[in-house]
Amino acid sequence: MSPKITTELLKQLRQVMKSPKYVQEPVQAYIVPSGDAHQSEYIAPCDCRRAFISGFDGSAGTAIVTEQHAAMWTDGRYFLQAAHQMDNNWTLMKMGLKDTPTQEDWLVSVLPEGSKVGVDPFIIPADQWKRMSKALRSAGHDLVPVKENLIDMIWTDCPQRPCKPLITLDLSYTGVSWRDKIVALRSKMAERKVLWFVVTALDEVAWLFNLRGSDVEYNPVFFAYAVIGMNTIRLFIDGDRMMDPAVREHLQLDSTLEPEFKIQVMPYGSILSELQAVGAGLSPKEKVWLSDKASYALTEAIPKAYRYLTPYTPICIAKAVKNSSETEGMRRAHIKDAVALCELFNWLEKEVVPKGTVTEIIAADKAEEFRSQQKDFVELSFATISSTGPNGAIIHYKPVPETNRTLSVNEIYLLDSGAQYKDGTTDVTRTMHFGTPSAYEKECFTYVLKGHIAVSAAIFPNGTKGHLLDSFARSALWDCGLDYLHGTGHGVGSFLNVHEGPCGISYKTFADEPLEAGMIVSDEPGYYEDGSFGIRIENVVLVIPAETKYNFKNRGSLTFEPLTLVPIQTKMIDVNLLTQKECNWVNDYHQKCREVIGAELERQGRHEALRWLIRETEPLIRVQ
Amino acid sequence: MSPKITTELLKQLRQVMKSPKYVQEPVQAYIVPSGDAHQSEYIAPCDCRRAFISGFDGSAGTAIVTEQHAAMWTDGRYFLQAAHQMDNNWTLMKMGLKDTPTQEDWLVSVLPEGSKVGVDPFIIPADQWKRMSKALRSAGHDLVPVKENLIDMIWTDCPQRPCKPLITLDLSYTGVSWRDKIVALRSKMAERKVLWFVVTALDEVAWLFNLRGSDVEYNPVFFAYAVIGMNTIRLFIDGDRMMDPAVREHLQLDSTLEPEFKIQVMPYGSILSELQAVGAGLSPKEKVWLSDKASYALTEAIPKAYRYLTPYTPICIAKAVKNSSETEGMRRAHIKDAVALCELFNWLEKEVVPKGTVTEIIAADKAEEFRSQQKDFVELSFATISSTGPNGAIIHYKPVPETNRTLSVNEIYLLDSGAQYKDGTTDVTRTMHFGTPSAYEKECFTYVLKGHIAVSAAIFPNGTKGHLLDSFARSALWDCGLDYLHGTGHGVGSFLNVHEGPCGISYKTFADEPLEAGMIVSDEPGYYEDGSFGIRIENVVLVIPAETKYNFKNRGSLTFEPLTLVPIQTKMIDVNLLTQKECNWVNDYHQKCREVIGAELERQGRHEALRWLIRETEPLIRVQ
Repeated sequence: MSPKITTELLKQLRQVMKSPKYVQEPVQAYIVPSGDAHQSEYIAPCDCRRAFISGFDGSAGTAIVTEQHAAMWTDGRYFLQAAHQMDNNWTLMKMGLKDTPTQEDWLVSVLPEGSKVGVDPFIIPADQWKRMSKALRSAGHDLVPVKENLIDMIWTDCPQRPCKPLITLDLSYTGVSWRDKIVALRSKMAERKVLWFVVTALDEVAWLFNLRGSDVEYNPVFFAYAVIGMNTIRLFIDGDRMMDPAVREHLQLDSTLEPEFKIQVMPYGSILSELQAVGAGLSPKEKVWLSDKASYALTEAIPKAYRYLTPYTPICIAKAVKNSSETEGMRRAHIKDAVALCELFNWLEKEVVPKGTVTEIIAADKAEEFRSQQKDFVELSFATISSTGPNGAIIHYKPVPETNRTLSVNEIYLLDSGAQYKDGTTDVTRTMHFGTPSAYEKECFTYVLKGHIAVSAAIFPNGTKGHLLDSFARSALWDCGLDYLHGTGHGVGSFLNVHEGPCGISYKTFADEPLEAGMIVSDEPGYYEDGSFGIRIENVVLVIPAETKYNFKNRGSLTFEPLTLVPIQTKMIDVNLLTQKECNWVNDYHQKCREVIGAELERQGRHEALRWLIRETEPLIRVQ
Repeated sequence: MSPKITTELLKQLRQVMKSPKYVQEPVQAYIVPSGDAHQSEYIAPCDCRRAFISGFDGSAGTAIVTEQHAAMWTDGRYFLQAAHQMDNNWTLMKMGLKDTPTQEDWLVSVLPEGSKVGVDPFIIPADQWKRMSKALRSAGHDLVPVKENLIDMIWTDCPQRPCKPLITLDLSYTGVSWRDKIVALRSKMAERKVLWFVVTALDEVAWLFNLRGSDVEYNPVFFAYAVIGMNTIRLFIDGDRMMDPAVREHLQLDSTLEPEFKIQVMPYGSILSELQAVGAGLSPKEKVWLSDKASYALTEAIPKAYRYLTPYTPICIAKAVKNSSETEGMRRAHIKDAVALCELFNWLEKEVVPKGTVTEIIAADKAEEFRSQQKDFVELSFATISSTGPNGAIIHYKPVPETNRTLSVNEIYLLDSGAQYKDGTTDVTRTMHFGTPSAYEKECFTYVLKGHIAVSAAIFPNGTKGHLLDSFARSALWDCGLDYLHGTGHGVGSFLNVHEGPCGISYKTFADEPLEAGMIVSDEPGYYEDGSFGIRIENVVLVIPAETKYNFKNRGSLTFEPLTLVPIQTKMIDVNLLTQKECNWVNDYHQKCREVIGAELERQGRHEALRWLIRETEPLIRVQ
């Protein structure tokens, strides 16, 4: 990996920072955040502006360019990668280290008095603008919105914004029509006494209209905004895709509808002016509901007194609680996904052990090949983490030719992968050994398994927030002085983003919403030893009501049901470290894998994989 | 309990709210918070203004009086008590219920436009002022500071502010001299680049100067403020107590000292004007450090640009980490406390079982009597919760003649009590049955015990915050659909407040500081069944380093060592519900009680109590 040479680009950027053609007044610093205008986690190539200007293409990072300096803030996952990808023009700011200045402090330390700091108001979330603007103002500087994105001005071969065809989802997938979703949203709006709701997150637009797209890799979303009034629906979206008869039929664009369900389709780029018009027309006490993570530009379109901002939108919360059509779809998707993985692991055992010719990339491709054979497969749900030996200890690893390692009988193999099917989204991690694991490797694996089971089998009161379960996943590791430096679980969308809010299981997340029956999260503790191996065991689990002996204050209890049904390699388990209860959990889980996935393998005529499944789900026996 | 008749008082208050003698402009509403000028949890009688005006004397509540209304906000612990103690002039606002308005919303709904809302700026914390002032301003009203406390104006028989003699603590108790504490504080100030530190919390003043007082019941503190500069020390304190030669010697008031350790003693009431003088004399970049919970009056004395506010002060954090003299003192205090409780429980068994003449109040008094026989006993550390049967389910119960119940062989008895000794503070809860507990009572007790052990025996990485351990205490209860509605633990002072920050174990506390070796917290899960019984098992535990098999990232691990050494009634344990590990924990704990407390009982010649201890610490045997 050689660094990107950015000398010329930085020179050009510094020119446009002073050019009256692009900025009202020269800016002495320009901030290039990671995100797009929808605060998406995964972004389209045309939005990879920070990667373009710096060369660093990790998922998180903020670049700031001044007349003299260029600096990049990123977190511990990316220190090495950023250092490799950036040339000497850049200073790496290692976030989380004690001596690393914040962006604000750094700006204050390098800027001449009374400087202007520019940023694209569509890219920076309103809450971040507020914090940064305040800090700069108190030091005598100004944060200013620069309408034209200055990177776009110098990015001559910038890719087009994608505008791919849409997929319509009928009731059998979604369970609720878009009309009923609008009705429910309006009733939430009435409850909070707001007249307008602005949908800015791409997965929220997709969910609301029961549409999917493929504008962003791995996330079945499309570029759009929506503004929902009590009697109006405006959808801001570009392209021929709205001419597709199936889409028109689905949205009933050509039918005579009650006016409150009539969708006005408007150009994607007109959202700001339309919202400004809404803002200008408000009477006192009329409010507009926005996520507090919406962009500064859209938030500013509504005068402050009329804004109603919340960390989670009603769509985010409704979307997280899956209805029975969605959970059934998720179940089907996970069965198909398990079939593909049984095929893969059976194939790996045959290939790795005698031949030793399978690399991480080949294994990842093979996993995709088996998945793509399944019904309603659309694409992967994230870049496959196929990692062996020391690569497994890099938590967000993705094999590339430079790092690609060959699987062997001497190393632990970690595969974290998932797919988008039309009926659901999957995300599963299994850790395997194709030879004989050492006692230490088994010991660590077993602690991780104990943590996985502790969360999966936990019973907890209705209304409990996921972060209260995080320590259960770590307790067995902590007992031996071990730990892992990531959260334990994230929300999973239903044929939508593989990471979604508002729930999760993490020591870090204090703003998570309470868990409810129907929510779907991952359960993925791990253990990583730098330079040697990585272990992670991940299932996607559904929150379900739990039967308990008593029922304190009539609150009811919840627990989890694994949707992922892929064997956990028993060869890696030191059964003597399990309690009888944990041992029973593994055996019950494997029994279910055998029954459910076995039947599907049989149905698909995949007999060799079925034999592999039977072998891998033999009950554990614990000697008392 | 008959309600206090407040008609006349409210009439008087409404008069002073309009009187130019007391207010610059009439106020249409007046807020009477619970606290004192130091944001103390326990307050002196002269500060019980909210109780005086309303009759409601629970520990938490805010009264607001307008020209037409009088309303009281309090939480679920006090709904019944407040309803009983207040007359019809008052509306009870049940906090935590969905339909209860916030104070701000209620004020906006009842006040005429452009109203002024008054509050004593010494009583309201700055952060609360900010929130309330903002909400009122956005509705067209004004929050205004009223210098004279209006309750004091009508409280003709208001008790004097206490001004009791001081106790000096020498190095054998404190481990660190006050001079060294000042040096350490100044080095923290230098680190943060602040020139002044204002000590507003009473326990922080007491800790800093190695002094104790008895101005507030249960808390060995005295009314004072301190302002520490880089070269000056000002102590704001009233009374003859500063004439005490022992105090003068301790503070070296009459010695020729280096000027930076010379304490200037000033009147308690002069803090505001002195602080304003400090504020007026600051140059740019000179900062004054205050707790963000300091009063609005003191915070405002420092111009905004010069304030440095933090949720926890450096004294609060230093005070929480006990040095070896303090932990040794805490150990001694807990041994003496255990002796007193062994005597008490032995006495109760002799009295309750055959005679049935012991009431909750008698038991509480007897507990105090046994404690007072111990060396260096000062007073109780909080009002004893002596509760039998249904009274045990009232979490903050305190027996009074109207509720006083007789202990019997048919009911569970819960005793939560503690004392201040010159060498340490105790807080212990034991739950006993003097007859034969039912299987259900034993089952619930055993779940609580499992939770207690899960926390006490937990091993966790250095730097872990206490709230991450809270779920461990609940897991066994959750498994059966049970729970308890309070936190699991609080910090405990060293011959100081029985509740202190900045650490604790609670699902609610997200602002807690990481646990460190030397911190002391309580571990007190419970289970409460309304109208029938309460169970709680509480030890005070010391955070200590843990030995672990591995040591991830060299972080080191921590665990707890119980300081409380009082038998846990084995009669209440269903041993079949314990794991072998839990059973061993109980047996090891009881073995330690026997050794340590047994030796002390022997030394004190308390042979009957010793026989009781031996009997109560017989090992549990678990049938596999």
